[in-house]
This record gives sequence, C-alpha cells and structure tokens, in this order.
Amino acid sequence: MSTAGQVIRCKAAVAWESGKPLSIEEVEVAPPQKNEVRIKILFTSLCHTDVYFWDAKGQNPLFPRILGHEAGGIVESVGEGVTDLEPGDHVLPIFTGECKECAHCLSEESNMCDLLRINTDRGEMIHDGKSRFSINGKPIYHFLGTSTFSEYTVVHVGQVAKINPEAPLDKVCVLSCGMSTGSGLVPLNVAKPKKGQSVAIFGLGAVGLAAAEGARVSGASRIIGVDLNPSRFEQAKKFGVTEFVNPKDHDKPVQEVIVEMTGGGVDRSVECTGSIQAMISAFECVHDGWGVAVLVGVPNKDDAFKTHPVNLLNERTLKGTFFGNYKPRTDIPAVVEKYMNKELELDKFITHSVPFSEINKAFELMLAGEGLRCMIRMDA
Amino acid sequence: MSTAGQVIRCKAAVAWESGKPLSIEEVEVAPPQKNEVRIKILFTSLCHTDVYFWDAKGQNPLFPRILGHEAGGIVESVGEGVTDLEPGDHVLPIFTGECKECAHCLSEESNMCDLLRINTDRGEMIHDGKSRFSINGKPIYHFLGTSTFSEYTVVHVGQVAKINPEAPLDKVCVLSCGMSTGSGLVPLNVAKPKKGQSVAIFGLGAVGLAAAEGARVSGASRIIGVDLNPSRFEQAKKFGVTEFVNPKDHDKPVQEVIVEMTGGGVDRSVECTGSIQAMISAFECVHDGWGVAVLVGVPNKDDAFKTHPVNLLNERTLKGTFFGNYKPRTDIPAVVEKYMNKELELDKFITHSVPFSEINKAFELMLAGEGLRCMIRMDA
Ligand SMILES: NC(=O)c1ccc[n+]([C@@H]2O[C@H](COP(=O)([O-])OP(=O)(O)OC[C@H]3O[C@@H](n4cnc5c(N)ncnc54)[C@H](O)[C@@H]3O)[C@@H](O)[C@H]2O)c1
Ligand SMILES: NC(=O)c1ccc[n+]([C@@H]2O[C@H](COP(=O)([O-])OP(=O)(O)OC[C@H]3O[C@@H](n4cnc5c(N)ncnc54)[C@H](O)[C@@H]3O)[C@@H](O)[C@H]2O)c1
Ligand SMILES: [Zn+2]
Ligand SMILES: [Zn+2]
Ligand SMILES: [Zn+2]
Ligand SMILES: [Zn+2]
Repeated sequence: MSTAGQVIRCKAAVAWESGKPLSIEEVEVAPPQKNEVRIKILFTSLCHTDVYFWDAKGQNPLFPRILGHEAGGIVESVGEGVTDLEPGDHVLPIFTGECKECAHCLSEESNMCDLLRINTDRGEMIHDGKSRFSINGKPIYHFLGTSTFSEYTVVHVGQVAKINPEAPLDKVCVLSCGMSTGSGLVPLNVAKPKKGQSVAIFGLGAVGLAAAEGARVSGASRIIGVDLNPSRFEQAKKFGVTEFVNPKDHDKPVQEVIVEMTGGGVDRSVECTGSIQAMISAFECVHDGWGVAVLVGVPNKDDAFKTHPVNLLNERTLKGTFFGNYKPRTDIPAVVEKYMNKELELDKFITHSVPFSEINKAFELMLAGEGLRCMIRMDA
Repeated sequence: MSTAGQVIRCKAAVAWESGKPLSIEEVEVAPPQKNEVRIKILFTSLCHTDVYFWDAKGQNPLFPRILGHEAGGIVESVGEGVTDLEPGDHVLPIFTGECKECAHCLSEESNMCDLLRINTDRGEMIHDGKSRFSINGKPIYHFLGTSTFSEYTVVHVGQVAKINPEAPLDKVCVLSCGMSTGSGLVPLNVAKPKKGQSVAIFGLGAVGLAAAEGARVSGASRIIGVDLNPSRFEQAKKFGVTEFVNPKDHDKPVQEVIVEMTGGGVDRSVECTGSIQAMISAFECVHDGWGVAVLVGVPNKDDAFKTHPVNLLNERTLKGTFFGNYKPRTDIPAVVEKYMNKELELDKFITHSVPFSEINKAFELMLAGEGLRCMIRMDA
C-alpha cells in the first residue's frame, strides 16, 4: 500500500537541547511539497558538522531539531514538479544543493548554488517556510535541508543525487558529505602535489584522511599529519600519513615546527579541523613563493582568520572549499561509480556501526576522537 | 680616465630623518666588491614604497639613508666574480634579486630568491655587511640594495637586469618596479578575466593603473576603480577604468557597495594601495564561488589581515604577489622588448619630470596624489 500523499509516522532521533543525548521519538513526516522528495533513509553516518550544531557552542542554537546529513536511502514519494526522480530511486541527500539555474550552478568554477547552498540557520523548507516534521502537531526543525536522523525525511529535489541502485548504501553513504569533501576536486587538486612535494594535513578525522589518501595517490613525498589527538597517528599511517605532529608537544606554534621540519614550509596544506587556530597554522606553514593552503573545516560563527599581510604578499595562496567543489547532482553519481569500479576506497573510513537505537554512541565515539565514520543502521 | 677601483665622489639625495626633505650631498661611493656592480644612474622615479620608508610611520626607521629603487643606468665597473655584466651595459637595478641557485630561483612558481629577496630593514651590502656610501667617512645606509637616488650606486649583480641598450632609460626605468608589479605575471593572469567579467582595482596610482590596463586589454567588461582621492578617476579612464567608487562617499564598507553594484561581487580584484583596510575590502568584494583577490601593496609592519573564515570557505581565493612574480634577471629584459615592440605602453604613466636637484618635488606630488610617475633626471 502506497504511503504517497500521506503523513508517515516513523522514528526519528530528536535533539531537544544543545549537548543533550538525542531521543528517539515517533514523529509525523508530512508529504513532500513542490520540488521536494520524501526519502526512506537506510543508512546515515555522523559527521563533525552534526556535532557542532548539536552542542551549538560556537553556532546559533536551533532546537528541537533533527540532525544528520550524511546518508543513503530510497525515494518513497515525490512532490509536484519533480520529474527526474521517482519512487524506488537510490539516492544520497546532500547538504548543499544544485538548482541548475543560478549563476553558480551555471559556472564551472562554483558549487555554491544561490538557492540551495548550505544554510545552517535555516530550520524549515524553503518552499513554504514550514517544517515537514512534527510531534503532536508541534514542528521540529530541519537541519541543512537533509535531517537524515529519521526513518523518513523530506528534501528539496536539488539536494538529492540519484545514484547507481547497485551501489551499497551502507558504504557510499559517506560520499554524501565527508569523503567527497576530503577527496573532492579542490582538496585533490591542491593535495595533488608534484611528485616529491610535501603536504600537511590538519585534522586526521575522516575528512582529513580522505585528503591524505588523495595526496598519497598523487605521489607526495611527505605527508605530515597534524592532530591534537595522538591516537590518530596509528590509523593515519594506513592513509599515507608519513609523519605526525601534535601541536601540544611543542611550545612554539605548530606552523613554526613544520617550517623547520621542511626547511621553509610544506608545498601544500589542507585544514580539516574546524579550529580557527588550525586554519591560521595551515596557512602559515606553507612555503613562501608557491605554497597553497585549502580550508575545509567549518568555523565557529565568531571566529576571525588573522595573519600578517606579508604572509600573503610572499606569494602564498589561501582558498576555501565546500563539499570538495563537487556539484551534488551533476558530479556525485560519477564519484559513486568510481567506488563501484574500485578506483576509490571507502570501506576503511567506516570504523564503527550501530543500530539507530544507539545513535548516541556515534556521538560519544566522535567526541572521544575514536574511529572515523560510525554507520548508523536505520532498520536495526 | 677609468674610475674603476676608485672611490667616486658624486651627488646623492640623503634622507637624514624620517619625513624631512632629502638633501643633496656629496657622497663617496666605494668600488664594487665581490659580486657587485657600480652603476651610473641616469634616471630614477619615485614609487610609493620609497615614501613609506622615508616617512617611516608604519615601518622601521633607518637613517641616514639613500632611498630609490625604480631606475635605469649604465654599468660603470664590476667587482670580483661578475662575469655576465661589463662596463657600458644598460641596466635596471631591481629591489628583489635572482641568485639563480636557490630553491626559489630554481622553481618556476616563485621569484622570492632566498639570498636577494626584498629586505627593507637591511641597510648594508650582504657581502660584508658594510655600506658603500659614506660622507666624510660616516656610512650612509642603503635601501632595498638599490639606493638609486644617487649619481652612482653599488648593487649586487643578482639585482641587475641587463637590457637592450637601445631602450630609452627615461621610459623603461618604470619597469624597474611599479609597471612590472602592476602588469606582471600574477596581476595580469588574475586581472585577465574571461570576456565580460568584472574587476575591481583598489588604488589608482601607477601600479593600480598598470593592472587596470591589463584587465582592459584582456576584455574585462567592468573595471571598477576604488580610491580615496576623487581626482584619480579622470586619469583612470584612460587606463580602462569604467566606474569609480570612493569609500569616503559611502557610510558602509566599500566591499558591500561593490557587492551590491555587481550583484554578488566582482570576479577578480587587485589591491595596489598598501592600506590594510583596502586589502580586506579587496578580498571581501570578490564573488563567492570563484572570486580571486590579489594583494600587491606593501603593508605596515604591524598590520593584521582579518576576515571571517567563512569568506574563504565560500570558495574565494586570496593570494599575494611581489614584483608581478617576475624573476628580475630572467624576465625583465623581455618585458623591455615588449615596450620596444610597442606591445606595452609606458609613456602615459610618466606624468611629471624634475631635475635631480628638485627631487623633493617628486615626493610632494606623490603625497598630494598628483600624477603617476615623476621621472627624476640625474644629469640635469
Ligand atoms: N567544507 C565542507 O564541505 C565540510 C564537509 C564536511 C566536514 N567539514 C568539516 O571538516 C572538519 C572535519 O570533519 P570530520 O568529520 O573529519 O571531523 P573529525 O572530528 O572526525 O576530525 C577532526 C580532527 O581534527 C582534530 N583537531 C581539532 N582541532 C585541532 C587543532 N587545533 N589542530 C589539529 N587538529 C585538530 C581532532 O582531534 C580530530 O581528529 C569539521 O570541521 C567538519 O565540520 C566540512
Ligand atoms: N608588491 C610589490 O612588488 C610592489 C611594488 C611596487 C609598489 N608596491 C606597492 O603598491 C602600492 C601602490 O604603489 P604606487 O606607487 O602605485 O602608489 P600611489 O601612491 O601612486 O598609489 C596608491 C593609490 O592608493 C590610494 N589609496 C590609499 N589608501 C587607499 C584606500 N584605503 N582605499 C582606496 N585607495 C587608497 C591612494 O589615494 C593612491 O591613489 C604601494 O603600497 C606600493 O608600496 C608593491
Ligand atoms: Zn558533513
Ligand atoms: Zn543553483
Ligand atoms: Zn616600487
Ligand atoms: Zn635565489
């Protein structure tokens, strides 16, 4: 019996307050409206961005909210005007969208869609400014337009990548955010040093290690991993990291340590921490004359990036990237194919797995800095 | 009669104190030592960098000093070990050098020679840490290794570009700094937007207008000039500037004005002011998703470049450049040839001319924001 057009009652993990464990509740999920899709989520994993907006220390708090943005599922029904997706399609919901019509979508250089780019402060659907989630009529806020910590969710069609139905959703799920971000176009091009060059990776979580692996495959001679958590190094070796620096082990700024280790600085650096101090260090540790630093981490809302302008004038380049510069609908299906063709490894990023009922364990693991991605199984 | 090996007594304009008019004095110029060249300066022009170190407000004061770094002259004699220059060669002394041996000189991407890169705090020759200038035995400091406000000066061979002897030194003189910086490799590539793109130029002095002209030749649709001095606009039109914004005319930051004028920001921007506020504005006024900002101006020593990291994360690129990324000995002779072949215009940048005895007038013109380059004739 079809559920299309009906309100679906299902389980979702609701964040009622900042920093408090999520609680699994029965929620009502309204049918998809114009240009929206309702998706049955099968797998979702935890990314650090969820944790930032859950503890909401450096971000605007918005509760009650259903978090989650790294996921894979199957289309349950589609709203008015949706022509390129139909029930049964295998999809990845994506936190940044692609309307295919705005200046950004039409530009080859950008994936920052004017209509559907990430907006962490928005808690409703753009169509009518309302939420599709409720509990006894009381609305629950969306997160990043994806809210995948729910058995069913409603997403704008521009934020849905249709993928090969044979791709295992419990693996390609991580391409919905972290692994695409770390190994995407910009991190890959930047972390793609000429043979023999050196790269520093700040933050050895899943995103950073995806960037490290990109650097290794491209032939970097030295891949220097930087993390505050010393237990990260053992694991990082499997992703190509050759040396490890813990800023806590030094009484001078870590950028100075790296400049000394490399006789002037690394050729490339990638920041995957979200820490403003790491962003500044990642920039200041690149070699003058040719060094390039790429920022990936999500900063706090009051952070300021600060450096002496001479560091720029000395011919360093600084840039940032969102979602690896991929356009979600246009590019992600092909990235999934790369996994299918064994050109891209994902399995080793998935270090833990829990049933949906134990979703708070995924938060505990990330807060403890243990493992990389924890896969949350919705049907278990 | 040859003067080689002898001390030369000649006229130089000495800065005795910060901000006080230069005084023309008779100085002794010692013979060139190992890897040095003594040059008879015929023409020198004033660049804003001279003014910064003369008024020394945001810089380390070092006096008495002979300023000057944009010049053309003829080799008088060479020191030990100099093989690729000989007396009579026509040359441009350059404030940043090229040893041809260090990692930077061997890299295609950098011109920031380890041995001879700009060092504004150094007042002596690197060979022996001594000055070649003196008055009654009391040493006078060098500036940028060039000190061209003197009839004779001593320069490291790595800072000397040998050029076509037919090139008029009173014109190609400005390629020794400003015009190469503004129309050099990086400003040109960056200011080389695709047809129809928009460019903002901060600072409509000679350096900024050289960048504007590069943008115009590349087919930019809109070239927005930004300057605090409204009299700059009339002149700027001749260099391709199509619109003018004076930050003083607005009660919001100029970057917001430009973002509004362009529906999201310019595609490229180039900062040629030395003002930290202009550097920040030049970065924040480029379009997210693809905008690129290039910093050229020389900042004060205590300046801090400060921006919200989200401005970077939103896929903007920020970089700096020295001397347009040209390698002085390798690249500048060919730039001079471009002038000879009429592919490059220089004459319109030279708006004033004074005899050496009136060098303080060049300072007055620059402080008043009048004209672009003032040519100082040494023999007059
Ligand atoms: N730009 C994007 O499109 C995008 C997408 C996904 C994730 N992100 C961001 O990327 C970052 C990494 O995500 P993740 O899921 O890999 O997180 P993670 O928690 O698994 O890894 C982050 C690592 O950074 C380390 N770290 C924190 N502060 C540090 C510092 N000052 N110096 C060195 N190391 C430090 C932590 O110890 C941890 O190992 C987060 O900021 C996340 O929000 C951005
Ligand atoms: N990086 C290099 O290799 C290099 C080489 C030469 C010159 N420079 C620097 O480039 C800059 C320009 O040199 P120039 O000789 O053309 O100087 P200039 O004085 O002729 O021109 C500078 C212009 O900037 C304007 N300006 C100053 N502050 C401003 C602000 N906040 N907003 C907008 N406009 C502002 C001034 O009114 C002036 O018209 C200087 O900082 C100089 O030191 C750098
Ligand atoms: Zn994420
Ligand atoms: Zn769009
Ligand atoms: Zn100059
Ligand atoms: Zn060198």
